Amino acid sequence: MTTGLDTTAESQGTELQTLSESRCWELFASVTVGRLAVTFNGAPDIFPVNHAVVDGTIVIRTAPGTKLVAAIDHHVAFEVDRVADARRTGWSVVVRGAAEEPRKIEDYLTALDKGPTPWAAGERDRFIVIQPTSITGRVLPPATTGVALSPSR
Amino acid sequence: MTTGLDTTAESQGTELQTLSESRCWELFASVTVGRLAVTFNGAPDIFPVNHAVVDGTIVIRTAPGTKLVAAIDHHVAFEVDRVADARRTGWSVVVRGAAEEPRKIEDYLTALDKGPTPWAAGERDRFIVIQPTSITGRVLPPATTGVALSPSR
Repeated sequence: MTTGLDTTAESQGTELQTLSESRCWELFASVTVGRLAVTFNGAPDIFPVNHAVVDGTIVIRTAPGTKLVAAIDHHVAFEVDRVADARRTGWSVVVRGAAEEPRKIEDYLTALDKGPTPWAAGERDRFIVIQPTSITGRVLPPATTGVALSPSR
Repeated sequence: MTTGLDTTAESQGTELQTLSESRCWELFASVTVGRLAVTFNGAPDIFPVNHAVVDGTIVIRTAPGTKLVAAIDHHVAFEVDRVADARRTGWSVVVRGAAEEPRKIEDYLTALDKGPTPWAAGERDRFIVIQPTSITGRVLPPATTGVALSPSR
């Protein structure tokens, strides 16, 4: 796996290694499913959704409901990852920013055209657009202990 | 894939199908990595972590830092899923509840013994224990449209 690491000597081995911003965007575009974290009634909640990267924003297609209400006009976090469970290695990228709905017809049409195809069944004609204020990524290295990597339970 | 569906007629086809609580716990124990959602400084954030199910709680092993501060004595959500990207099918289970640290020596020793083995490198001798107030799971059905399932971008 090429990781595009920012390899700083002090981060080798004991810390999670960070990814460059360009590598974060590449990884974001390499998968179609992520997890949207919102705050609803004062508590965090999390939803798996599919997404597309459109003009530097994250576009999510969804149905009317809690997810939409909790996200729109609020700060959200959106995470994608790929984890090789057995080897406990992988990467994770998180975008944080404000979520909004397309407000102009042309923005809605762009979301329809370039946004994700409906993933789950049902009526999903609403969009959540995340305007990123930060994107951060990390490589998740394998455990360094000699402990067996198979689940112990 | 056996899904343990609560198959109600009205939910067939157009809605995401819910999973029984016992099936949710089975699925939770079938994977070792999930995503922890917290609220920090008023905004949601999300972290991939490994976990273990211990006596009906979710035990996460971590290092001191933002994640720990944001979680302890707060409400959190923790999600696990398995998504077949190409077919856009899969399942997702979310636990919501209060996060706490083990307060008694014996609880700490239980977490050390039965909790997850350290996944990422570094000093990870702190535990987050989630006492679930709810666990919900859904099957994510494939898209029902005729739209091509390969990414369009």
